[in-house]
Amino acid sequence: MNIGILGTGNMSSRLGRIWLARGHHVFFGTRSVEKAAQLVSETQGKAQAGSYHEAARFGDVVFLGVPWSAAEETVRALSAELRGKVLIDCTNPLASDFASLVVPPHTSAAELIQSWLPEAHVVKAYNTIGAKVLANPIYDGVSATGFYCGNDAAAKAKVATLIADSGFDPVDCGTLLQARYLETMTLLFLNLAFKQQMGGEIAFKLLKR
Amino acid sequence: MNIGILGTGNMSSRLGRIWLARGHHVFFGTRSVEKAAQLVSETQGKAQAGSYHEAARFGDVVFLGVPWSAAEETVRALSAELRGKVLIDCTNPLASDFASLVVPPHTSAAELIQSWLPEAHVVKAYNTIGAKVLANPIYDGVSATGFYCGNDAAAKAKVATLIADSGFDPVDCGTLLQARYLETMTLLFLNLAFKQQMGGEIAFKLLKR
Repeated sequence: MNIGILGTGNMSSRLGRIWLARGHHVFFGTRSVEKAAQLVSETQGKAQAGSYHEAARFGDVVFLGVPWSAAEETVRALSAELRGKVLIDCTNPLASDFASLVVPPHTSAAELIQSWLPEAHVVKAYNTIGAKVLANPIYDGVSATGFYCGNDAAAKAKVATLIADSGFDPVDCGTLLQARYLETMTLLFLNLAFKQQMGGEIAFKLLKR
Repeated sequence: MNIGILGTGNMSSRLGRIWLARGHHVFFGTRSVEKAAQLVSETQGKAQAGSYHEAARFGDVVFLGVPWSAAEETVRALSAELRGKVLIDCTNPLASDFASLVVPPHTSAAELIQSWLPEAHVVKAYNTIGAKVLANPIYDGVSATGFYCGNDAAAKAKVATLIADSGFDPVDCGTLLQARYLETMTLLFLNLAFKQQMGGEIAFKLLKR
């Protein structure tokens, strides 16, 4: 797949390299010309890099890896490029204490993003996964779960493939409304990892018979 | 331990038998004289049964297994018996659509119960676990997680022992505030089990290195 990546933080840069290694075409979008050159150089020219607009235009699937505080401005500016595209929303609308969410009750970051981009296919994914876990999502032979949800079946099927390609067990959680619970799950993750001092390498798994 | 159980639904009756089999003393509290006699008979007289008041008086640890709609009336009527006791709150404050919670934002069933019983030690536990999973919490050698949280360390230690005795991997999620996220996790569980048709035998696991 052609994947555009918006943002060059831990999740974005690690996932971009993972997908690249699995044979996908990756274009990193960044506001920094230096960062763009660095990413191309670090991937021996296998990845492309440029502006957010170029990344959004390039991708059939676009990964939104910017902080929540930048999400609305970023996606509204790209509404033309993102029309009809799959947008993976990895944001977590965290309050500054990392212990609550700043979105109103009965909605979620993902649903807000979908409302700003009614013609894109928003799929919530990767938001419950710590960046450190990307390096190795297998725990004694058990793969961590990549929970995802969205309203478009074809878009979700593409994201499920990318989740599996990155080593996680994809679990379809249903419609985009379920993002409310995936986003609060991240609060539990952050609390366990940092306040309970279990560390950033913990991960959630859905066990099935 | 002496365990009083309030309610005789699936979670209550199954957990009572499991703890009984692990050598604990169990007293089932119910409003039905017939049900009380039946529970005593089904456990060959190993469990005791009687009123909610008797069960609450009997237990050093008391398991609250009534529906959320009955929780406030039930615990307020037992405030004297529950003083200083460990109260395991297994409730989920589900709306009638099973897709949202009826508690206000920025609180949880567990925190409300603690506010009604300031002298009890409320520990949220078992609410993310399906009743069917109690029969066998091991999935290919991996034990499902029993998430719990509360404000009193000694109370949590007792509950962790009971969680382990029932075959689950106990994970301390911190203060009672975390119940907010354990309660929304149940919405994800119900959605996956029933709307996504994965069935009631799924369970959450926290993977660690």
